[in-house]
Amino acid sequence: MIDLRSDTVTVPTAAMREAMASAPVGDDVYDEDPTIHALEERAAEMLGHEAGLYCATGSMTNVLGVWLHVAPGTEVLCDVNAHVARAEMGAHGALTGVTMRTWPSVNGRLDSAEVAAIVSPDAGPYLVSTACVAVENTHNFGGGTVQPLDQLQATADLCRDLGIAFHLDGARLPNAAVATGIPLETYGRLFDTVSLCLSKGLGAPVGSVLVGPAADIARARVQRKRLGGGWRQAGILAAAGLYALEHHVDRLAEDHAAARALAEAAAAGAPEAIDPAAVETNIVALDTGDVAATQVVAAAAAQGVRVGTVGTRTVRAVTHLDVTLEEARTAGQVLGDVLAAVRRAA
Amino acid sequence: MIDLRSDTVTVPTAAMREAMASAPVGDDVYDEDPTIHALEERAAEMLGHEAGLYCATGSMTNVLGVWLHVAPGTEVLCDVNAHVARAEMGAHGALTGVTMRTWPSVNGRLDSAEVAAIVSPDAGPYLVSTACVAVENTHNFGGGTVQPLDQLQATADLCRDLGIAFHLDGARLPNAAVATGIPLETYGRLFDTVSLCLSKGLGAPVGSVLVGPAADIARARVQRKRLGGGWRQAGILAAAGLYALEHHVDRLAEDHAAARALAEAAAAGAPEAIDPAAVETNIVALDTGDVAATQVVAAAAAQGVRVGTVGTRTVRAVTHLDVTLEEARTAGQVLGDVLAAVRRAA
Amino acid sequence: MIDLRSDTVTVPTAAMREAMASAPVGDDVYDEDPTIHALEERAAEMLGHEAGLYCATGSMTNVLGVWLHVAPGTEVLCDVNAHVARAEMGAHGALTGVTMRTWPSVNGRLDSAEVAAIVSPDAGPYLVSTACVAVENTHNFGGGTVQPLDQLQATADLCRDLGIAFHLDGARLPNAAVATGIPLETYGRLFDTVSLCLSKGLGAPVGSVLVGPAADIARARVQRKRLGGGWRQAGILAAAGLYALEHHVDRLAEDHAAARALAEAAAAGAPEAIDPAAVETNIVALDTGDVAATQVVAAAAAQGVRVGTVGTRTVRAVTHLDVTLEEARTAGQVLGDVLAAVRRAA
Amino acid sequence: MIDLRSDTVTVPTAAMREAMASAPVGDDVYDEDPTIHALEERAAEMLGHEAGLYCATGSMTNVLGVWLHVAPGTEVLCDVNAHVARAEMGAHGALTGVTMRTWPSVNGRLDSAEVAAIVSPDAGPYLVSTACVAVENTHNFGGGTVQPLDQLQATADLCRDLGIAFHLDGARLPNAAVATGIPLETYGRLFDTVSLCLSKGLGAPVGSVLVGPAADIARARVQRKRLGGGWRQAGILAAAGLYALEHHVDRLAEDHAAARALAEAAAAGAPEAIDPAAVETNIVALDTGDVAATQVVAAAAAQGVRVGTVGTRTVRAVTHLDVTLEEARTAGQVLGDVLAAVRRAA
Repeated sequence: MIDLRSDTVTVPTAAMREAMASAPVGDDVYDEDPTIHALEERAAEMLGHEAGLYCATGSMTNVLGVWLHVAPGTEVLCDVNAHVARAEMGAHGALTGVTMRTWPSVNGRLDSAEVAAIVSPDAGPYLVSTACVAVENTHNFGGGTVQPLDQLQATADLCRDLGIAFHLDGARLPNAAVATGIPLETYGRLFDTVSLCLSKGLGAPVGSVLVGPAADIARARVQRKRLGGGWRQAGILAAAGLYALEHHVDRLAEDHAAARALAEAAAAGAPEAIDPAAVETNIVALDTGDVAATQVVAAAAAQGVRVGTVGTRTVRAVTHLDVTLEEARTAGQVLGDVLAAVRRAA
Repeated sequence: MIDLRSDTVTVPTAAMREAMASAPVGDDVYDEDPTIHALEERAAEMLGHEAGLYCATGSMTNVLGVWLHVAPGTEVLCDVNAHVARAEMGAHGALTGVTMRTWPSVNGRLDSAEVAAIVSPDAGPYLVSTACVAVENTHNFGGGTVQPLDQLQATADLCRDLGIAFHLDGARLPNAAVATGIPLETYGRLFDTVSLCLSKGLGAPVGSVLVGPAADIARARVQRKRLGGGWRQAGILAAAGLYALEHHVDRLAEDHAAARALAEAAAAGAPEAIDPAAVETNIVALDTGDVAATQVVAAAAAQGVRVGTVGTRTVRAVTHLDVTLEEARTAGQVLGDVLAAVRRAA
Repeated sequence: MIDLRSDTVTVPTAAMREAMASAPVGDDVYDEDPTIHALEERAAEMLGHEAGLYCATGSMTNVLGVWLHVAPGTEVLCDVNAHVARAEMGAHGALTGVTMRTWPSVNGRLDSAEVAAIVSPDAGPYLVSTACVAVENTHNFGGGTVQPLDQLQATADLCRDLGIAFHLDGARLPNAAVATGIPLETYGRLFDTVSLCLSKGLGAPVGSVLVGPAADIARARVQRKRLGGGWRQAGILAAAGLYALEHHVDRLAEDHAAARALAEAAAAGAPEAIDPAAVETNIVALDTGDVAATQVVAAAAAQGVRVGTVGTRTVRAVTHLDVTLEEARTAGQVLGDVLAAVRRAA
Repeated sequence: MIDLRSDTVTVPTAAMREAMASAPVGDDVYDEDPTIHALEERAAEMLGHEAGLYCATGSMTNVLGVWLHVAPGTEVLCDVNAHVARAEMGAHGALTGVTMRTWPSVNGRLDSAEVAAIVSPDAGPYLVSTACVAVENTHNFGGGTVQPLDQLQATADLCRDLGIAFHLDGARLPNAAVATGIPLETYGRLFDTVSLCLSKGLGAPVGSVLVGPAADIARARVQRKRLGGGWRQAGILAAAGLYALEHHVDRLAEDHAAARALAEAAAAGAPEAIDPAAVETNIVALDTGDVAATQVVAAAAAQGVRVGTVGTRTVRAVTHLDVTLEEARTAGQVLGDVLAAVRRAA
């Protein structure tokens, strides 16, 4: 099986396992785990922030990051397919008591004018006040889209002018940095808080780091406990995260090349399903036309290729540490054939 | 002063006061107020629903209506300027724990394709599920826009097909019915629940009715108590609401004529600020161009005309029971002059 | 029927209706209702506080009062049968996100030592912090119990020392003041916020006032809107509340006398069910022994006396404006007979 | 340093690290981690339940366990010092929207009569309904108290009769089982859901398992994702948990002996601070009399013994895997000497 459902499915490498096996640990609820400290400091430094908090998931770091900036009854703005809006089970409403307003965007790409058109800061006693704008980079459901730096900068400026917080869901920020050559820190400094995921392209088994001002991170630590996220000797896992930050960032270029190869192979069979030039990072979105995406998923699985869906008419393939260039190319051929066949049949 | 800030500012007429003074009442927490019963039954009947619940505000009936259809962690879809999204202080997130996704629309006008593009029913264990679509008719921040019946019908069909609830914020539904000649019931039957406001154009001092299936209304009654909305001998106020339903629906046509007259008078002075043909009901939205809307509000107030703002570049004037056609025309002239002057100065 | 289910069942007197009929009103969302202003100022003055907020119910004023003092994830302390814990549908958890800890007390009577034993202020990053202590005076489910002033004072001192807020659920505070001769203001000044109900013994049809510091009341006004409680020309009802504050406080002594007479008449028939000396205000709690309280309620209703239950073995009768001394005595005889009969049969 | 602050401070043993290093893993969000499956099945089996869910903390398994049984606006009953009430940062109110009522109990020991006195099932439209009773066994703040089986049984019967759920916070249930000889399963079967912690006395670095009916566990899995607890290849940690369940249960007897030895050594120096016979498991609570507990903590730390506080006048010492009998005895001597000295000085 070639498993391209997500870059979360990687298993730790032997070197990573070794790092975990020998990691010094302590009780993180008491803030005494040296490996976690090292990871938090390293992540904060890489992103140009003061402090970090290591958590079990990117959903948790997003929930905490947004929570820092809002109060119940305020609102968060993001695009209509942002992970915080669609893929965190409504946690921001259910747990934090905020509401959201969103706008559609092509491939999830940020346009600061969309934010400016609806933002509503300090809206007084009758209207909801915007407390936070959140952006995802790269954009998962948009197809691994890299956010344009000028739009990020323009939105950061807008937020600063209006006194609104700016949060980055950087689940796949290293992919953006590698694809563009723009340093992580350049991205990171545009935001009040950044969530960086270690268990996606970076290949660590578990975890995400929230970075931001030290005082905010201290508050997030308490709220993390309230969410049931105050774990103990998690330095075991943090060791894998540290290893990933040192060894698995640059190699994301290989995943991007594999994604491009996959897209090209698929386009050879089904050119109407994918434009390989549109693949920016490690995510390939294939248009299934009039055919249900789930049908394509099933047909591909029957031929040894596991992929996922986004909505009802898009198949998503994600390259990662555990997939070689050759496997990606093979998967692309299978997907191209399957797409051609089902479209013919439809 | 000609007060056009909102149609909520009306004071009860003499006849309405008389109806209140003689109303039989009982303890509504025990469901024993005969005047409230009469009002709830009448509202339900007019809207083609089984039962009604009389509440203190339209915000409460919207919060209860949506609450009936959702669970914490699910989502509601509505346009980006809907009252439920912008003007209820984030109650749906803060109190009910739901999140929202929205889309921009011209003048708040519904297009069922926008809903179809983002709706996400029964989305499984990883994605937020859409539980409810909410529409506002007429649309307040859109400028008193009447929702097209075919789009309402198409969205109702979509919701029914997908097993999603459809809620109408009918704060100004009587304005839509009077403007189009389409019966309230025709609108009402498209929705699972409808919130109908008595204290806007209808001129009652306080209150709104939620209508829907009897079993739902019984559940809403309990949640109303949780919100602190389980009042006692409110039949005093319900009497005014009943009076309004009998005597103040048809006369909304006068408010619409007054709004048109106001717009025409304003356009005479400041044609770039308003197209009178765009005025559909009792709300007039005036574009202040490069000038801050608050500046226009202040200048108009200095000349005896009180209006409000929507966003930073729109002034809103609302006609109602306490404003004559002549006063509306005068206000239009004042606003036209003010707009012309400030635009010249800018 | 003699209706003793609650003092909420009163209907407005002719004089009260007259006050409502002629009340000047305005839009309270814009804070422009003169009668509401008069009521809020009068209530604040009587209780020794800066400002007031008129709301639809005592549940809402309690929810707002507590909300002012807490944050999600903090706790409120109160006795195990307090109205805020038992009779507000869990609103404080559901809407405000606070938790509670409680202790059992005899007849709901406050003992500051119980608070001191469990209070946990500024409890740090691992434990819940106590943010508010709430007391009910008189205590409804305790049987109309008047809270001892020295215990109120001791608890107020404790709260002040620990930096914790102290909220009074004064739904029936006028009953306590009339029963003891202690001024409302003396009670009021012990607390950071007080909720005073107008629709219980005071006989107004609807409403309750929250009083406290002006800055807090301004914040509560915004949260009231979030709860859907921002009504419009509610001055109609406020007029009844104002009337009640002027004319219906002192007469509560009559309700207390009626309650005592009821208790004595009941004790004549069923001495084991009630000690008349235990009746402190307008609530009479009758012990039904081994018999289900609901059975006694049904038997009394069959003889023209409506009462309620507290728990499974207590019947509650409440005297009020619409019950004469003679009717109370008759009701007591009926209840005594019924209790004697059912206990004999059991 | 002898660290007795908590049994959470243990670091993984060499054998445990080996188990982690070689554990097969998969993506637990997709429910594909074989080591997690093995742990969940083993825990469920040991406790007599159908299914299990492995989570990052005991706070999370308690929050999920209770969440399964309640709805916003209902209530949970527990004693006033229960972990769910005091040490989970108010999560049940903040995240789940439930309220709590509690009662004081000696050393946290359950008395089913206390529950029966306040329970309020199906309380109708005016009162909060009890949805869940929660018990902690052993009781942490009570001093490692073992709950009496007959009271657990009586409370289970009461809950079943009333249709109320019964949740066990079994953070230290293995200590209770080892201390009494009663099988884990006997305890487990009394409850609808059980939270079992692996990172306390059992010595695993991270994690807790919630067990219950399979359908409930499936729902808890979704809510876990909402809380941000849906981690990926956590089988690394689960391997340590599995190891702990196999090898670290019976040895808790050593911790209990060490706690007793500590208490005896302390009592030799400060007999008024502790009755060694009261030590039931691995927690020793020392009464600091008129001296602030924090002062004793500081003095003991200066002599190489780290302990914690419970409230203001109690010092808590907890024995565990990383403390030998000899170290416990030494710590007891130090604590006895310190207590004697500070009490003399006071």
